Amino acid sequence: MKFSPQNERQFAVVGLGRFGRNIAKSLHEMGYDVLAIDKDMEKVQDFSHEVTHVVQADTTDEEALRSLGILNFDVVIVAIGDDTEANIMTTLQLKEIGVPYIVAIAKSPLQIKVLEKIGANRIVAPERDMARRVAYNLASTNIMDYIELSPKFSIVEIAVPKAIRNKTLSESNIRAKYGLNVVAIKRHDNLIISPLPTEVLLENDIAIVVGSNESINGLEALEK
Amino acid sequence: MKFSPQNERQFAVVGLGRFGRNIAKSLHEMGYDVLAIDKDMEKVQDFSHEVTHVVQADTTDEEALRSLGILNFDVVIVAIGDDTEANIMTTLQLKEIGVPYIVAIAKSPLQIKVLEKIGANRIVAPERDMARRVAYNLASTNIMDYIELSPKFSIVEIAVPKAIRNKTLSESNIRAKYGLNVVAIKRHDNLIISPLPTEVLLENDIAIVVGSNESINGLEALEK
Ligand SMILES: Nc1ncnc2c1ncn2[C@@H]1O[C@H](COP(=O)(O)OP(=O)(O)OP(=O)(O)O)[C@@H](O)[C@H]1O
Ligand SMILES: Nc1ncnc2c1ncn2[C@@H]1O[C@H](COP(=O)(O)OP(=O)(O)OP(=O)(O)O)[C@@H](O)[C@H]1O
Ligand SMILES: [Ca+2]
Ligand SMILES: [Ca+2]
Ligand SMILES: [Ca+2]
Ligand SMILES: [Ca+2]
Repeated sequence: MKFSPQNERQFAVVGLGRFGRNIAKSLHEMGYDVLAIDKDMEKVQDFSHEVTHVVQADTTDEEALRSLGILNFDVVIVAIGDDTEANIMTTLQLKEIGVPYIVAIAKSPLQIKVLEKIGANRIVAPERDMARRVAYNLASTNIMDYIELSPKFSIVEIAVPKAIRNKTLSESNIRAKYGLNVVAIKRHDNLIISPLPTEVLLENDIAIVVGSNESINGLEALEK
Repeated sequence: MKFSPQNERQFAVVGLGRFGRNIAKSLHEMGYDVLAIDKDMEKVQDFSHEVTHVVQADTTDEEALRSLGILNFDVVIVAIGDDTEANIMTTLQLKEIGVPYIVAIAKSPLQIKVLEKIGANRIVAPERDMARRVAYNLASTNIMDYIELSPKFSIVEIAVPKAIRNKTLSESNIRAKYGLNVVAIKRHDNLIISPLPTEVLLENDIAIVVGSNESINGLEALEK
């Protein structure tokens, strides 16, 4: 999915480890100006052709941060990783300087707790978060992706089970019987949005349905 | 979201680094039997109370794998990480032994390529994948979560922009004017699924809409 930049938002990324490099590249590819910072000169040089600006600096040093004009950035992403002290120290400095939005990458439950306390606006724990997504995916082979709308409701992409195949949506009674709404149907390379009640679900179709997790469980438990 | 186990699927996780520990715990919490394996005895001991079974073994050794009865597992997750040789070697052995579904965690573009070639059924690159998700999120503050339905279409959760607030859905003409369908509305702790055309979008509502990325861009570009 590629959204065009809605304004001239400025991003800085601290730490060019795996997460830092990837997010800097993604933002750059989406058309944003990105300043990348690392204390390691070698990482700075390796990355110098990937984004708009790459500089060497130790971000635990307030003076260094100020002289980079860090206050002019709308969002700073702290991706320092394993070095808990540098991670926390950098986030604290950015907070004190007054950066409006700080995203902190946490590598451990302790880091999560402390980064929350000191006011990081958003905390991302890549391994934990991705592990959860993959676990959900694996636990239910029929479900390929999802958005959790609330603790009780979700939207999921699901392979169409036998029981509701080769019938129109109204015949399969999916709303009354299973408590679910079919929002869209993926068929080969086509996407049928807001399918009519006369639409027939075919083998290999993928349905995008919205409803309670309980209802989704019900559908998921049916034979594929 | 918590789906109940649909059958007695058996999972094994190799490598108790951050990703491995997290996915083993998630699957265990979802009610599955999980065998966790690491060559490092200390990691095995630290993790021994977290899942059903934890054993010490070097998974690059085919004999070791066979004697664990690895063939009886439906899904094996290889989360060895940085050690490219051990990562690839383990995946190869599992493939040869005939494990039905192998998920490989890749830490670099090279690992991704090789793991694909040797037949891992699914490849996860946690830092890359999470970095992308977070980049999309940051680039468009209005959009909170999404499912990419195809390269051109998505479902997104979006803060309702001013232009379509305090109007019924049919007045705001969101379908005709913006090419989007509102699938659900989040309002405080409530969720309105398949809202009627007479439903009014309020400030602080979050709309779940489906449509082309272009249309979503259009909505996203409107003033919040
Ligand atoms: N005080 C600091 N100021 C600026 N950058 C820092 C500071 N402390 C650490 N860093 C940088 O943060 C980055 C952290 O990356 P990390 O060790 O998490 O990488 P990784 O994801 O394990 O990937 P890899 O080790 O393969 O690069 C390193 O490049 C490091 O030089
Ligand atoms: N051949 C092997 N057989 C079994 N386990 C292995 C093998 N090679 C590596 N491992 C294990 O895989 C795990 C890899 O974890 P990794 O180094 O990626 O951890 P991490 O995500 O960086 O987290 P942390 O270093 O904090 O534990 C280690 O626990 C290591 O002992
Ligand atoms: Ca590292
Ligand atoms: Ca790392
Ligand atoms: Ca490690
Ligand atoms: Ca790691």
